[in-house]
Order: sequence, then C-alpha cells, then structure tokens
Amino acid sequence: MSRLDVVAIGNALVDVLSHESHEFLAEHGLIAGAMELIDTDRAEHLYAAMGPAVEISGGSAANTLVGITSLGGSAGFIGRVADDELGAVFGHDIRAAGVEFVSTPAVDGDPSGRCLIMVTPDAQRTMNTYLGASAKLGPADVDQDLVARAQVLYLEGYLWDEADVKDAYRLAARTAHEVGNRVAFTLSDAFCVDRHREEFLELVESDVDVLFANEAEITSLYRVDDFDDALQHVQHHCEIAALTRSELGAVIVTRDEVHVVDATRVGDVVDTTGAGDQFAAGFLYGLTHGYDLGTAAKLGALAAGEVISHLGARPASSLAALAAPLLHR
Amino acid sequence: MSRLDVVAIGNALVDVLSHESHEFLAEHGLIAGAMELIDTDRAEHLYAAMGPAVEISGGSAANTLVGITSLGGSAGFIGRVADDELGAVFGHDIRAAGVEFVSTPAVDGDPSGRCLIMVTPDAQRTMNTYLGASAKLGPADVDQDLVARAQVLYLEGYLWDEADVKDAYRLAARTAHEVGNRVAFTLSDAFCVDRHREEFLELVESDVDVLFANEAEITSLYRVDDFDDALQHVQHHCEIAALTRSELGAVIVTRDEVHVVDATRVGDVVDTTGAGDQFAAGFLYGLTHGYDLGTAAKLGALAAGEVISHLGARPASSLAALAAPLLHR
Repeated sequence: MSRLDVVAIGNALVDVLSHESHEFLAEHGLIAGAMELIDTDRAEHLYAAMGPAVEISGGSAANTLVGITSLGGSAGFIGRVADDELGAVFGHDIRAAGVEFVSTPAVDGDPSGRCLIMVTPDAQRTMNTYLGASAKLGPADVDQDLVARAQVLYLEGYLWDEADVKDAYRLAARTAHEVGNRVAFTLSDAFCVDRHREEFLELVESDVDVLFANEAEITSLYRVDDFDDALQHVQHHCEIAALTRSELGAVIVTRDEVHVVDATRVGDVVDTTGAGDQFAAGFLYGLTHGYDLGTAAKLGALAAGEVISHLGARPASSLAALAAPLLHR
Repeated sequence: MSRLDVVAIGNALVDVLSHESHEFLAEHGLIAGAMELIDTDRAEHLYAAMGPAVEISGGSAANTLVGITSLGGSAGFIGRVADDELGAVFGHDIRAAGVEFVSTPAVDGDPSGRCLIMVTPDAQRTMNTYLGASAKLGPADVDQDLVARAQVLYLEGYLWDEADVKDAYRLAARTAHEVGNRVAFTLSDAFCVDRHREEFLELVESDVDVLFANEAEITSLYRVDDFDDALQHVQHHCEIAALTRSELGAVIVTRDEVHVVDATRVGDVVDTTGAGDQFAAGFLYGLTHGYDLGTAAKLGALAAGEVISHLGARPASSLAALAAPLLHR
C-alpha cells in the first residue's frame, strides 16, 4: 500500500450551521466562541430553537485532512459514524474529498454525531456538539496498517474523553512511533484543556512530536497568563509547537528556532469555523512535503484565510491553486 | 385561525449540492439544466460519484413559501416526509423560516426525498430528484382548513405524477375555490410539461387562476416554437400568467394587460437553483398584499436576483429589507 502524508483520528461529525444573534446565545445560555458537549435533549432543544440551517460535514481533524487533500496531499481518517443518513453524509463527503475512510458504520447505539454551530454577526462560531456514535471509538477501530503508512499521525483533543478513546490514541501513537512516524496533537479547545490538563501534559511530554494550540489553549495547558511564558514551557516539551493567535498570526517554536508568521488578510471574515483546522492542514502539508517551518506556517495561514472567508469549515476552493504562488520551486 | 397569504402543496426535499464540471454531467448521462426523476439505485450511484456536498432544505414550492415569509408574508406548507434525519432537517428548516408545517412524518415506506444538484461553472443547476416519501401524498394529507385560510393555494407541477397526488391537488383546488380563494400553479419543468401536457392543459383551463412558467415550459405546453405565440394562447386560459425568461426578465399577462419587467442585475451569478421559485415568491407576495401586477413582478425579479447570487434555493438575506426601497408607501 502507498504511503500517506497524514492519518488522523477524530470526531466524525456533520455541522449544522445557522446565523444567530448574540441575544440568541444569551437566551440559551451559550458562551460565544466556545465548544460545549451536549446530550440528546439539549441537542433537540437547541435545534428546535435555531433558524434555518445548512448541513456540511465537519469534525476538526476530518476538516484538517480535507484541507491536506485540497493542497494536493494524501490522507486517511479513523472515526466512528452510525448507520444513518448523517453518517452516510459524513462518509460521502470525506471520501469525495479524496481522504481514505474505510470505517464500517455502527448499527447499534447512538446516532451519528452532529455539531450545532451558531455563527454570530461578528463571524464567530459557537459550537454545541452532540457526539453520539463518534465518542465510542476504541482500540479496535484503530487500523494499525493505515496508521503505519502515514508520515504523521494527527490526534484531535476534542475526542479525548472516554477511556476507550484514550487507549485508542495511545495504541495509535505507539504504532506510529514504532515505525518512525511523527505524532501530532491538537489541544482543540481551552475548556477541553481545562478538563484534561494533567493527561494532556503527560501526552504532550511523552507522545507528541508536533503540537497545535491557540493562545487560550496553550496558556491554559501551562496555567500561565502570558503567551510568552507558555511558549517557553512548550519549547522543552515537544519537537515542534505551532501556536495560532487569530488575527495576530502564528508562532512556530522548536528547541532552537522561533518563526513568526502573519495572518492572511481576508476581505470579509464570514465564519471563523475551521480556522484552526485549516491552519493545521497547511502546516502539516508543508511539514510532510519537505518545506521549512516558516513556509509550512505560511501555508497554514493561507488555508485558514480561505476557510474564514465563507460559511463552513472545509475549503470552498482549491488550496493547491491558492498555494501555488507560495510554493513555486 | 388567522388568515395566511399562501398555502402550497409540493415536494418535501432536501437539496444535496455539489460543484461539478460539464464533463461530469456528460460522463453520467445528465442533461445540463434539466430535472430528472431517479430511483434508489441511480441516487446511490450518482451520490457516490458526486464531490463533497452541502445539504440545504429545498423543494420548489417550499422554497417559494420561505421566500414569502422572508418578504414578511405568511404561509403554510403541505408535503410529505418520512420519519428520518433528512425529514427532520426539512421540517426544522421550513418551520424555522416561519412557515406553518404540521405534517406527521410517515413511519413506513420510502425515506424522505432528496434532490442531488450539480452546479456547473456556468452557475446552472442540473437536478436529479429521488422523491421517496414526498411522492406518496394523497387527499388525506390535504388539510382543508389550512387551504381555506390562505388567499392563494399554490401547487407545484413537479409533484404531479401519482393518481393520489392528482386527487389531492383537485381536492385542494376545489376547497380553495369554494371559499373564493385563488389557485396558482407552476409548470415546474419542460420535461414535466412534456409528460403531462394534456392534464396540465386541462388543469390550467379549469382550475388555475395564476400560472407560473418559464419560456421552455409555456412553449412546450402549447406546442409552439415562439414565446409570443404561447403568450397569445395563455392569455385566454387563465386570469394571470407570470412568464419568466431568465436574464430577459419576465412578462405578466392577463386578458387585458401585459407587463414586461427586467431581470434584476446580479454581480456574480453563483447558482441559478431556485430562481423560478423565488420569482413566484416575490410575485405572490405582491399579489396578496395589494400591489399592482408590475410591482409584483418587480418583487419577483428582486427575489430571484437574490437567490442566484449564492449557493442554495432559499434566500440568504432578508428579502423584506431588500424590497423596502421598492415598497415605500
């Protein structure tokens, strides 16, 4: 079997997006910009209250993989859907984007996961995730041959919750390292870091080669107030840390190097959903195609810039075409 | 119960939209710009071949009603979904848009209908409709109280196929006329007219007060080559005919009047899906709010212009706000 650039394990979700006001968020006790896990009742209640919506396949790591294939890279996904219509939509869309995805839909248990996303007029997304079948991933779902084929294994912090998921992540990381592949991890969300700080710290120290985090996540991980303090910490805990700062751009840190790149200017920011996912896509594409860290970060900024200019968390136009001027060599 | 502007009977469908090339259409034997009815196998085959897609609630008459509520009007919908996820999406979206929809999802039989729409780079949509539960509508589904409450009953030509549907339409038309309401009908599609010409001619003569058709449909109905010939025919067969001609605008014909209105200029035509549906929305809003036929047609052109400027067949912004300058009175 051929080599792949990146294999990811993450949530298999369909996004349900609507435009809502900040008053709507307040009325329903939602924290603007945050991700909250919700149960079936809450999902039904919020969905009933939401305005007309659009369904687009999502899932953080899955979005990243679609960004990588849009740049011309190769990718495989490990995630869990149920045997229902939203599961079929998720599977269709990720395969249609050129990502290998061979999971058999689960016939028992919870329905496929979905993420109710309210986009406010400031282009910020507030996410309410009903994980459903997605959260029940275990070691048996980890296709070790697939993991071994990829230069990088990419793990999504959002999914870190049930004991079986943690076992699956550890098994996959061991598999990747045994054949000399790198392991990348995204902290995903500051609330997520808050819930799992000790385990995330241990994971970052022992298993993670490439860490993705935004400012809120990395300062939460090290319980520091200052971004620069967090940067000093992370520098000693993993090979590469790619730290994103929204409109301030990104900082890439290794033991010996620091690269600072600007955010890509966007005419009209429509929906920030997927900015972090696409930054990771561009960066991982660069890393797996022999580009230096500065160029990889620029690819990340470029991909993030594309995705915030329209509704939805996956690229709407070819990232390879957008990146061509940057990569002429 | 309060009065409504329009009640419609039509297909309850979720649109599945992807961007495809003309080569893709040729490869799969699809006729650009047409609507084709497909069975389960063909639906699965085409869906597997399509690129990443977006799901947005659709259905021609349902889209029209959402346009009417977006203009500030009131509307009710009669259509049939199954008790599945796409049915739930359809129901949520039409209710969230402010349209009354009280149908109980069917627990037996086919799944909810869907329309696979390929949007080509010329912004044209090619539609492949799997009707599913939607086509099984019968007289029992016609809520006669709801029909009686509306100034206009609007019927969708697409749904005209099974005997039960025809009975349902005739029952609804009789109900509307008995209480002095108008009956509007859209020919929907030239292939549709070709299949049902004799029945459509009879329906137009006997039951239809307001007819919507585009150039291909109205010339097909009267088997004439020339738009003007068709216009002379239709003038004697129903009270009002609203004939749309894409970028050439629209012509409104009554026994005594002819109004010609220009198409609304659009910067970038992204997806023509729903142009006819939204023309009907604007026109019916005007008709049910006391505007003259010329103004009603301008409202139609305005609503059509909005919907072709983005992906999807329902308005993305408030039509009432867009129409305000036209309606200052």
